[in-house]
Amino acid sequence: MVDMPAPQPPADEKTCPRRLRSDAERNRDLIVRAARQVFAGEGLGASMAAVARRAGVGIATLFRRFPTRAHLVDAAFAESMEACAGAMEAALADPDPWHGFTSFIGHVCEMQAADRGFADLLTMAFPAAEALEAKRAEAYRGFAELIARAQAAGRLRTDFSPDDLVVLLMANAGVLAATHDAAPDAWRRLVAYMLQAFAVRDGEPLPPAPSPGTLHQAMVRLSSENPDTPTP
Amino acid sequence: MVDMPAPQPPADEKTCPRRLRSDAERNRDLIVRAARQVFAGEGLGASMAAVARRAGVGIATLFRRFPTRAHLVDAAFAESMEACAGAMEAALADPDPWHGFTSFIGHVCEMQAADRGFADLLTMAFPAAEALEAKRAEAYRGFAELIARAQAAGRLRTDFSPDDLVVLLMANAGVLAATHDAAPDAWRRLVAYMLQAFAVRDGEPLPPAPSPGTLHQAMVRLSSENPDTPTP
Repeated sequence: MVDMPAPQPPADEKTCPRRLRSDAERNRDLIVRAARQVFAGEGLGASMAAVARRAGVGIATLFRRFPTRAHLVDAAFAESMEACAGAMEAALADPDPWHGFTSFIGHVCEMQAADRGFADLLTMAFPAAEALEAKRAEAYRGFAELIARAQAAGRLRTDFSPDDLVVLLMANAGVLAATHDAAPDAWRRLVAYMLQAFAVRDGEPLPPAPSPGTLHQAMVRLSSENPDTPTP
Repeated sequence: MVDMPAPQPPADEKTCPRRLRSDAERNRDLIVRAARQVFAGEGLGASMAAVARRAGVGIATLFRRFPTRAHLVDAAFAESMEACAGAMEAALADPDPWHGFTSFIGHVCEMQAADRGFADLLTMAFPAAEALEAKRAEAYRGFAELIARAQAAGRLRTDFSPDDLVVLLMANAGVLAATHDAAPDAWRRLVAYMLQAFAVRDGEPLPPAPSPGTLHQAMVRLSSENPDTPTP
């Protein structure tokens, strides 16, 4: 019997794992970039098939990388959530608490106007998008601090509820959906009125804020109208 | 030749035209009532087939009576538009111009919250629904008078634009769409803030109102997303 050398993988198979990794990374980047563009134009209800088409990958590849819509949303909006966190940091560092409070809200509403996907994101909860929901929880904590500072400075009305920001974002979404092409600055009017209404003054008392948790339920319901794994 | 009497239609044929008329009237009422219910629940985008099903008539019968969606909308909301006109009349007769102004807005927003079809109607223009658009034009004239009176009384800010009511209705539609089942009173918060913001005070100047006509364009676009004669 001839002593056969142990079989060696051919040269191109040896480099294969690395190539697979880099192909996978490339596909992932293509998909995330495509998702950002498609979500920005069509909102989070856009079809996964449209994202795959835009990315130039098959739908099976997309679902292999991102088994649910929540996974894709998580990846697509990581940068926007970072930008949001940056705006929060700047607002908390603002020596004028009222200016910090109003400029944070203005910043978020501006992001909402610029990106329909981000707009959906702001008013939809995605319990399965863990990174995103962790950042959202962090933003809520930061916002509570912005509120406390602006109230302590005597500038923000004491009956302001954190949920009023959610109400404003939902309201802004309504204006944006109706006007984005014909009157793209109409939303600024809403936000300016609301910020002025949030300021301390001798106004009528407000109706009670929504019961705790109910707005979150509404946000979950909104997102469940965009099922996680729709038929593409 | 026997002198034959001129042939007489049988008794049931004689009554036929009247029966046809009353059948047609009955069908019309059934369809209008069904349209009100379906639009109230699903908005003006509801399918004509759903209206026909609810009315218990064939789709052909529906289209014979109401050749386009605009015709049906016109008929279904005649009463609501009357109620709106009544609220306007009461507001104009209010000895307190500010109370008249705010109560009219509150009334319209309440109707918007109660009926999703009416909510759509408020932010969509239906150029083909003539009776409805005539009433809308009348309401705009009345609203201009409410504004003038409240401003003359020194209560409404002078930079308030009639379009701000449209912006508020679009905003309210956004809140209602997001919260109607989970937090059905959240919209009251928005409206209360906005009414307080409309009052005269030493506030920051507002960003400019949308250019004339642009909001109307937005309303027309919204309604054109519900084509007149969709495949049922």
